[in-house]
Amino acid sequence: MALTPARTMPGVLELLPLDQIAFQRMLDVIRRNYERFGFLPIETPVIEYSDVLLTKTGGETERQVYFVQSTGALEKQHELVSEPKEGWVTTQYVPELALRFDLTVPLARYVAEHERDLSFPFRRYQMQKVYRGERAQRGRFREFYQCDIDVIGKDALSVRYDAEIPAVIYSVFRELNIGAFTIQLNNRKLMRGYFESLGIVDGEQQMLVLREVDKLDKRGADYVRDTLTGATFGLSAEVAQKILAFVQVRSTSLQDAYDKLDALGAGPEAMEQGRNELKEVLGLIHAFGVPETHYVLNLSIARGLDYYTGTVYETTLNDHPQIGSICSGGRYENLASQYTKSQLPGVGISIGLTRLYWQLRDAGLISTATSTVDVLVTQMDAAQLPAYLALASELRGAGIATEVVLEGGKLGKQFKYADRAGIRFVIVLGEDEIAKGVVTVKDLRREDQFEVARSELIKTLRVELEQAAAMG
Amino acid sequence: MALTPARTMPGVLELLPLDQIAFQRMLDVIRRNYERFGFLPIETPVIEYSDVLLTKTGGETERQVYFVQSTGALEKQHELVSEPKEGWVTTQYVPELALRFDLTVPLARYVAEHERDLSFPFRRYQMQKVYRGERAQRGRFREFYQCDIDVIGKDALSVRYDAEIPAVIYSVFRELNIGAFTIQLNNRKLMRGYFESLGIVDGEQQMLVLREVDKLDKRGADYVRDTLTGATFGLSAEVAQKILAFVQVRSTSLQDAYDKLDALGAGPEAMEQGRNELKEVLGLIHAFGVPETHYVLNLSIARGLDYYTGTVYETTLNDHPQIGSICSGGRYENLASQYTKSQLPGVGISIGLTRLYWQLRDAGLISTATSTVDVLVTQMDAAQLPAYLALASELRGAGIATEVVLEGGKLGKQFKYADRAGIRFVIVLGEDEIAKGVVTVKDLRREDQFEVARSELIKTLRVELEQAAAMG
Repeated sequence: MALTPARTMPGVLELLPLDQIAFQRMLDVIRRNYERFGFLPIETPVIEYSDVLLTKTGGETERQVYFVQSTGALEKQHELVSEPKEGWVTTQYVPELALRFDLTVPLARYVAEHERDLSFPFRRYQMQKVYRGERAQRGRFREFYQCDIDVIGKDALSVRYDAEIPAVIYSVFRELNIGAFTIQLNNRKLMRGYFESLGIVDGEQQMLVLREVDKLDKRGADYVRDTLTGATFGLSAEVAQKILAFVQVRSTSLQDAYDKLDALGAGPEAMEQGRNELKEVLGLIHAFGVPETHYVLNLSIARGLDYYTGTVYETTLNDHPQIGSICSGGRYENLASQYTKSQLPGVGISIGLTRLYWQLRDAGLISTATSTVDVLVTQMDAAQLPAYLALASELRGAGIATEVVLEGGKLGKQFKYADRAGIRFVIVLGEDEIAKGVVTVKDLRREDQFEVARSELIKTLRVELEQAAAMG
Repeated sequence: MALTPARTMPGVLELLPLDQIAFQRMLDVIRRNYERFGFLPIETPVIEYSDVLLTKTGGETERQVYFVQSTGALEKQHELVSEPKEGWVTTQYVPELALRFDLTVPLARYVAEHERDLSFPFRRYQMQKVYRGERAQRGRFREFYQCDIDVIGKDALSVRYDAEIPAVIYSVFRELNIGAFTIQLNNRKLMRGYFESLGIVDGEQQMLVLREVDKLDKRGADYVRDTLTGATFGLSAEVAQKILAFVQVRSTSLQDAYDKLDALGAGPEAMEQGRNELKEVLGLIHAFGVPETHYVLNLSIARGLDYYTGTVYETTLNDHPQIGSICSGGRYENLASQYTKSQLPGVGISIGLTRLYWQLRDAGLISTATSTVDVLVTQMDAAQLPAYLALASELRGAGIATEVVLEGGKLGKQFKYADRAGIRFVIVLGEDEIAKGVVTVKDLRREDQFEVARSELIKTLRVELEQAAAMG
């Protein structure tokens, strides 16, 4: 039989075990922190009805959707296409099922579907993979993890929740330990209100200006100024200059943020509302225990998505600005208007972990993982196998992850296996040791070994493992 | 805008948060035990190339595959179908991509693809969802979790690993705490060898007999006897009787298992090999610390899949036989012959967790979960919000998952929210308490409340939470 080449499609990140362990540890840290703040887990199916997924979104996302068909559906489609009925246009055919492309649309569907069974404010976390039919390209993923939290209110949701989100972000990224980071905040009402004060009164027009402003980081100030004063927008040089000055506002401390917000001067209602919200949120973030060093006002943050209506967030690594935002989100007025008449305002963020992990690894910020296996019990003497198994059983009972060499072979080869597999501690137990009631522990990391009384083994290993974990 | 009904397709299990927590705890127990035995995590993409997925499997599985097409691929297909090229048959069209229907084929692909980067024996665990285009039917899932472990050897793998697997099964199901269970073992070589001793020498014929025997539980002895003595098989009544007697062998202890294996009498080489393997495995399982009460010889276990070649396992709940096997697997000679010339023997098991959870819940064996949220800090007085936030921050720092009521409202309503959300402990902190340096803790489960010094709060809550966890 001819062999089929073993391969995966481009745009997926498949990891070797030690890398998977490093990745899994990041997932665990995120989950632990989400849970610590009282967010509840949900999972939704990867496959959704196409009409449910594609109600709200525009062409851009639709182009990237993966459609799904069972063998039966595929055959049915072929019949339809081969013998089209009247009025049938082949390119109109949209399969009934598709893969989710984010976790927000499924959340909206979930909340609308289970509304009566949920308690509001509904605080959910969801850490699952999403799918996009992206062109194959370095750093573009077709399958990637999103780790989302959202708080959804019924009818209303206090702006105080907007201040809790940065506390979660702070807690997550502090524990992830990937370097200094800054949470950047802005408020879309403030932005739109300020544009209004400059004579840009039309909502559509404000959105278009927002979208241009959002390009500031990528295209630079000159490009944005030229566009704003160009034929499409037709703004005066003075107005364009004011917009550029506005979006260049950054704070250096909480008081500085208050001052800079005040310095913007009086404005229309939306602007005052945005300013008040921002002030309350900035102050509360501090009460939530986030140090002033870790969050700033950044009036250039607009977020591309049109559905954000108030607070918006981005988070960046201070020493790696090229990575861009590692965690973004904001406040929206109504989560699920396409499925329910209920008013469901919310606020949330998303961490795109696959891309983040890939970027961090690329930047050398992820250290080689030690294995999830704490200890390898070697096999010096096949006749002693029952003793090895009993020892392993004892270690496992104490919560120490233990692998036993069941096939034997040279000890040196067994050590090499442990080393390659990232297992730090290796136990050697020969006839001599058994007679003396001791075991020999080899620490492959420190290239050291010691003898310990069998009765002290668990205690000793626990101390060693705790130290190893604390050292990172 | 007309509303789109919020719904999911049939055959998926979408859970409310408290149920999701119960499910997640099962996943965590399985993962913890897999890791404790030294299995390493991998994840593979949900989407694989169709030709990679469908090399080995027969029509039955192929029928149930979900194919995947991006919008671009769909358009291209429509062009092809609408204006077929020479020799093109529409029903031949198989999309390039498909969703995995198990974790075994992806494992084979993974090991073949990354062979040079893996250490053998390669011990992997994988807990991900798989997809099958099943007809909608109660208890049939189109999306479900499989929790697999496998040990893969290069060229050879000691039969000792076959004894480790039941130790993992024992450890998992003991901690899952879903009632008494029994691991049932058999060996395909023993079966085939025994059939050979009865004159059924042809390998194909042996497989067909095995398949009939596998129907014993579902169809009963009479059905199987009639089939075996019928036109297709044409076996004598005596031979059929011997086969039925063979498959009805069960052991009551380790010694009884040895005795019953010996009582089968001498046989051809395959039978002796199978018997020796079974004896070694049964004895070692005991050395691995599995009590004799939890595993038996059951010579009717055949497992439907043709690729098992030696030891086979099933696990059943003693008090709920109707649930069937909750964890099955076995030994195979060659994992990835479709992708590589390397000989990769292995042994493994799979837990179909979605179905198991659903069955256990159906049988009333899953108790209502308490929330992942340990504590709700209520809001008695909005002016004290900073004090509430500081308290919550302290609790979270101590690893206690804490939600703060940010919006206020009547205390009674806040208690009701906690109760409905499955949060057991509620903290009340008013001006009085703050002045006295105490907090009031309400235990909603015990319908009790007590006052504790603020400085003692974390210690007290930790004790309470540990007790609650121990009580299950």
